[in-house]
Amino acid sequence: MNVDEKYFKNITDRERAIFEGAITMGALFHQFVGTPVSIESAPGLEKSIENAMELQPCIESVNIKISKKMLEDSKSKFEYTALSGEMMDIKIISKYDDKKAVIRMKFIEGLNYPLMYVEEADK
Amino acid sequence: MNVDEKYFKNITDRERAIFEGAITMGALFHQFVGTPVSIESAPGLEKSIENAMELQPCIESVNIKISKKMLEDSKSKFEYTALSGEMMDIKIISKYDDKKAVIRMKFIEGLNYPLMYVEEADK
Amino acid sequence: MNVDEKYFKNITDRERAIFEGAITMGALFHQFVGTPVSIESAPGLEKSIENAMELQPCIESVNIKISKKMLEDSKSKFEYTALSGEMMDIKIISKYDDKKAVIRMKFIEGLNYPLMYVEEADK
Amino acid sequence: MNVDEKYFKNITDRERAIFEGAITMGALFHQFVGTPVSIESAPGLEKSIENAMELQPCIESVNIKISKKMLEDSKSKFEYTALSGEMMDIKIISKYDDKKAVIRMKFIEGLNYPLMYVEEADK
Repeated sequence: MNVDEKYFKNITDRERAIFEGAITMGALFHQFVGTPVSIESAPGLEKSIENAMELQPCIESVNIKISKKMLEDSKSKFEYTALSGEMMDIKIISKYDDKKAVIRMKFIEGLNYPLMYVEEADK
Repeated sequence: MNVDEKYFKNITDRERAIFEGAITMGALFHQFVGTPVSIESAPGLEKSIENAMELQPCIESVNIKISKKMLEDSKSKFEYTALSGEMMDIKIISKYDDKKAVIRMKFIEGLNYPLMYVEEADK
Repeated sequence: MNVDEKYFKNITDRERAIFEGAITMGALFHQFVGTPVSIESAPGLEKSIENAMELQPCIESVNIKISKKMLEDSKSKFEYTALSGEMMDIKIISKYDDKKAVIRMKFIEGLNYPLMYVEEADK
Repeated sequence: MNVDEKYFKNITDRERAIFEGAITMGALFHQFVGTPVSIESAPGLEKSIENAMELQPCIESVNIKISKKMLEDSKSKFEYTALSGEMMDIKIISKYDDKKAVIRMKFIEGLNYPLMYVEEADK
């Protein structure tokens, strides 16, 4: 089956890149929020989240930074905490054919919200 | 802060609808896969998933059907199972300004994969 | 197959009740943290979480209260937030044969941690 | 605050080990089911799950094996799949004071269910 021919003819290559990047961003957030994490375990968890989410269709790269400052501030008496949206700064590069999109999530204080948006997309 | 002005000027209204619908589709899948579900609890769970995901920005409606046949086939000796991607048929309608997009997920046998795609999007 | 005979002969009935309640408490937290929730959607979400988790073995009842005050305090500009551990007060009653256990989770300020503990267990 | 004194006086050391191991088993399952995984990414994901769950109270070690055969059998046209309960064989060693418990999860064909049970617990 030609998936692209059958299911994606109604959107442009740029739209496809945006679409796939957005799916992966929503997926990443809701898969991993709640994961136990400490300052020591954060780098390994970041790598593992990146590797998992890069498996999804049209994903070139995933880059996630978990704020060490927020891990420090929110750690419990047991020296770890649960991963939350406001700790994460995420950049996902998706590509379909020759069109690339950069999807970003970062916490915006003024919104009290981890905003997901399109940072760049090839015309 | 005008969020749209600041973060979304670089994409069209149609692209915004696709973007927000895609985020919510990825989010829904990864939030709820694994949830204990039975034939009896499925209708209530469907409603609750719809209500949760309709809170997200630009989401007009979420409609999810959990396959009763697959629940029957995959139930354990304990009369329930864990919600999986292949059981779900999902339709999300997102809208930005006057542009609407219909995002769909359904399991495609030939791909052995719950495919997410854009079913319709206003020009 | 007699599951109890084969897999659970090495623990007492009281221990079995504690074991099953603890599994369900850990499961509930990590399944639903991150779910979009608002003041309006909270009662329906509570009911749906209860129904899902009551499917698990030996679970008599699940009762969860999501703090309306914390929902109000943490809501974003988009009028909802992600469910977090500190918002939830949970009581799970598990029972094996005639031994009952009450498993509790509540946020303890002094620990900065949603503590899970055994509130009561039949001798 | 002495947590053990305040919240755990009503259970024995052996029961505490069983309790904490059970929480972590339920948590692991529901946090990570749904994660994108391939044959290549599985070893890194296993390690990362182990590191995350070992942060929880009283957890000595977590060992998880994701079945390579099941990954092969269930992979989609996109060369990966979503992590599911039947793919995992998990052993968690929890310890409180000098009492150790070994909590296990494995898929039992006859039950069509990933059963969690106490494999061993110190008297």
